[in-house]
Amino acid sequence: MSELSRASGVPVATVKYYLREGLVPPGAPSARNQADYDDAHVHRLRLIRALRGVGRMGIGRVRAVLEALDDEQLSLHDVLGVAHRALGPAPDRRVVTDEIADACAEVDRFIVDLGWEVASDAPARGVLADALVALRRLGRKCGAEVFEPYAEAAGRIAERELSQASTGAARADTGATRADIVEWMVVGTVVFEAALTALRRLAHEHLSSARFGS
Amino acid sequence: MSELSRASGVPVATVKYYLREGLVPPGAPSARNQADYDDAHVHRLRLIRALRGVGRMGIGRVRAVLEALDDEQLSLHDVLGVAHRALGPAPDRRVVTDEIADACAEVDRFIVDLGWEVASDAPARGVLADALVALRRLGRKCGAEVFEPYAEAAGRIAERELSQASTGAARADTGATRADIVEWMVVGTVVFEAALTALRRLAHEHLSSARFGS
Repeated sequence: MSELSRASGVPVATVKYYLREGLVPPGAPSARNQADYDDAHVHRLRLIRALRGVGRMGIGRVRAVLEALDDEQLSLHDVLGVAHRALGPAPDRRVVTDEIADACAEVDRFIVDLGWEVASDAPARGVLADALVALRRLGRKCGAEVFEPYAEAAGRIAERELSQASTGAARADTGATRADIVEWMVVGTVVFEAALTALRRLAHEHLSSARFGS
Repeated sequence: MSELSRASGVPVATVKYYLREGLVPPGAPSARNQADYDDAHVHRLRLIRALRGVGRMGIGRVRAVLEALDDEQLSLHDVLGVAHRALGPAPDRRVVTDEIADACAEVDRFIVDLGWEVASDAPARGVLADALVALRRLGRKCGAEVFEPYAEAAGRIAERELSQASTGAARADTGATRADIVEWMVVGTVVFEAALTALRRLAHEHLSSARFGS
């Protein structure tokens, strides 16, 4: 147990809690009050740590991701979809005004035009529609085509990221590397999202210095 | 007053509150209990609405941005810097471990290598350093060069955005258009940041369908 904690970076008390909650499978009993844990346990704990920490998921969402991961019937793409949805944010759609419905329909057409195949309930569609509504409320007379340069940049970045993840995908027949890819996706989504937006702000500052500086 | 509210999209009670707080200059007295407001008032109110709404700034931060805007000694670049900092997020640096200090130093060198001139206290530097720390804690043995493709993409996007903003900059000698550029920068930073990250997630889903789908 203490080795498992050291190898995974998860405190012993937290490991015990995950075992009780069934998020981590029990070890093989070895001696009185002892159990053997293997690499799969370490990988599972590292994944939970990434989902909880970087992904800021509650235990319920972590459970949903792990259940999808353990379901052999689901493709890795399906598992990544569950993880994506668990990451949020999901726009509030309790009240759908005409303004919001129009923006959603426009964003859907925009995604079709890009040739992108994404689930009809992907929360990022709603985030994009909300951005369009915000621009219009601020008086910008624009349609979803305002997002074109961003789609191009995002597509290029994602292409690069997915080919790195695929290097691992060839090995994705074992549970551990399937878990590794999900971990990498969650970490990659959250951490590089923060990095990309920070770099855009730094680039703004640099370029604005040349154009608007005294 | 009611015309001003209609033209700016800010409720009358809120306009009165901003006048009392000194965020909006008083109108020219015209008749008993009446005042004349002009385009500059409308622009100011629209800017406050953008800072409060899309930018989610509290009144104190809005005041800081407006004071910078009104200070004729400050270049537009300086005003944009104040707005940038008011937008947050600012990483928590009450405790600086060696791990964080190392990451900050690496990020600083990375930005020098990019040839980007940004203030030494730009909060986005800290966001980037935190992302590097998060990657390392998750076992990735990487340096700041892991951000290179993101810097390239962010630089290209920012370049495009700034040239659009500069179209307005030629007219930036009046208070109103200076305010317009600040408004556009805040709106652009926040709204297109959300759009860019949503599009990256959609691109991930699309590409992962082809690679990992059943």
